[in-house]
Amino acid sequence: MSARTATAPDPEVSRARLDRLQALVKDELQRVNLVIVAEMQSPVELIPQLAQHLVAAGGKRIRPILTLISARLCGYSGDRHVNLAACVEFLHTATLMHDDVVDASELRRGRATANAVWGNKAPVLVGDFLFSRAFQVMVADGSLEVLRILSDAAAVIAEGEVMQLLTANDSTTTEDAYFAMIEAKTAKLFEASSRIGAVVADRPAADVEALAEYGKCIGIAFQLIDDALDYGAEQQALGKTVGDDFADGKVTLPVAIALAKGDAAERVFWQRVLETDDRRDGDFAEAMRLLKKHDAINATIRRAEVYGERARRALDRFPACPERAAMLELVDFCIERAY
Amino acid sequence: MSARTATAPDPEVSRARLDRLQALVKDELQRVNLVIVAEMQSPVELIPQLAQHLVAAGGKRIRPILTLISARLCGYSGDRHVNLAACVEFLHTATLMHDDVVDASELRRGRATANAVWGNKAPVLVGDFLFSRAFQVMVADGSLEVLRILSDAAAVIAEGEVMQLLTANDSTTTEDAYFAMIEAKTAKLFEASSRIGAVVADRPAADVEALAEYGKCIGIAFQLIDDALDYGAEQQALGKTVGDDFADGKVTLPVAIALAKGDAAERVFWQRVLETDDRRDGDFAEAMRLLKKHDAINATIRRAEVYGERARRALDRFPACPERAAMLELVDFCIERAY
Repeated sequence: MSARTATAPDPEVSRARLDRLQALVKDELQRVNLVIVAEMQSPVELIPQLAQHLVAAGGKRIRPILTLISARLCGYSGDRHVNLAACVEFLHTATLMHDDVVDASELRRGRATANAVWGNKAPVLVGDFLFSRAFQVMVADGSLEVLRILSDAAAVIAEGEVMQLLTANDSTTTEDAYFAMIEAKTAKLFEASSRIGAVVADRPAADVEALAEYGKCIGIAFQLIDDALDYGAEQQALGKTVGDDFADGKVTLPVAIALAKGDAAERVFWQRVLETDDRRDGDFAEAMRLLKKHDAINATIRRAEVYGERARRALDRFPACPERAAMLELVDFCIERAY
Repeated sequence: MSARTATAPDPEVSRARLDRLQALVKDELQRVNLVIVAEMQSPVELIPQLAQHLVAAGGKRIRPILTLISARLCGYSGDRHVNLAACVEFLHTATLMHDDVVDASELRRGRATANAVWGNKAPVLVGDFLFSRAFQVMVADGSLEVLRILSDAAAVIAEGEVMQLLTANDSTTTEDAYFAMIEAKTAKLFEASSRIGAVVADRPAADVEALAEYGKCIGIAFQLIDDALDYGAEQQALGKTVGDDFADGKVTLPVAIALAKGDAAERVFWQRVLETDDRRDGDFAEAMRLLKKHDAINATIRRAEVYGERARRALDRFPACPERAAMLELVDFCIERAY
């Protein structure tokens, strides 16, 4: 087990964790990138142009890495995990494209979004293409079990995205509703990504479920930290912008906590800023003041740490090895982003 | 073979053709509808609400009927074709939802579109859900071959939709580009729908390919007639509105023919109305005059008749039976809509 300290960690130490993980799967990750570039091709040139725009922007590739490292942890020595990791990234990319259309987002990974450059039409359709292509690659892989896992995940993700739509601008959103939403929209694909690593390695059900639990808990922790970062956790080195969720009226856990603990006057404030177009100068500062008053950001990070600990425990059944060590460090990385 | 006359047929005769076909598969079609209603359910209530909105609006269900009738023509006596027909309709419905967002359409099947009622966000996400659910149902069916056919079709449809985006507002669009687009966006799903009917019946490749050819040619004819109807073929009994494609600047075959045959002044007209926002009163009437001058609508219908004849010939290898007779009548129905 990697040791964690209660004090804020060094950002360079944190970044080094991710670097070590990426180095461990470097060759396979390069092959995943080759598959991604090969499979996004189409005689319709706008498709690779758009796909390239988002894929080239990078991202941490955490989901495909989960598939690769889980397969290796399970002793898998074949090639299938590379293609399936590309499928996972395609499903994720398709979701991002549709997400950005739905949110009318302008920036993603520090670049203009596809919808900001090409309008809404092409990203809807290219998202559909990437989604279909992911299933074509899975069919070529030939495992009905993998197809089941990823088609189930895709349906649950869509449900989670609709839940997000419904809870936005709704100040009555509960913590339970928030967790149901992030388990569906975010954690399900993390869970599926690590699960298929164990499935291709043909491991017994208990190992498959342990890796699924690891992925799910990492995913929840990742989203909790993302939502904390949107209210400006201490450092912004990772390129997140602050206040997007607030501007969109999204009820994330920090807000749900402050809402639950707030008095009547505070609830009036939250109702106005979340549910109406009546936004005023100083609203974000006031929101931040209320989150601080109710310790809502720290409470969110502590919830992430609980899920991080569950993720670590899920790896207990696997023997110590470089893969397990890297997966433990990934837990730390996901949470340390908040500091 | 059903006899066809060169003169315009009686609309009641035409409608009776579709009625006979639907009557032949009535029980199975009712079971398809039950599967559709059951599979569109989700704990996220907005999903069945939106799906129901489009599904309840009806539609002719031609694609699932193709799966059902093809399976029966092939002597299939199991249940799988019912679930797979529902998959086909889900893929079609998902495409329609995304289409209507892309086109900002207000009406579909005589009702307000989902995007007109709920905005663009929910239909993008509910389309994704229906798409995923279709793959879940295919996985439960368990045939990798069917999964291959429908994932291939889904990718090609998305390519066709992007082609449509690129050819809209482009007066240099050729007939070839038009046919490539409609083969992808429309005919591919017709082809896949009838193909899987033969596949579940486990028929030899030549029969599978014959039914795929039938579906493809019906699909092309269907789209050609649709595009002719958009310029007001003689009767509007089937509820099509006129002028939508013109308003969207879509270069369909009637326009491509008039463009190719037009003189310099006509090309200036088409460039203005297709490529710019400079639309004037009387433009649609002028477009209709040019289409008539170059016999473009009739030429489009004649092309549809050629594909109709190809569809009929594809059925030659099958013995005479009620299913084959109904499939021949479906060809007539698809083309007679134009009169």
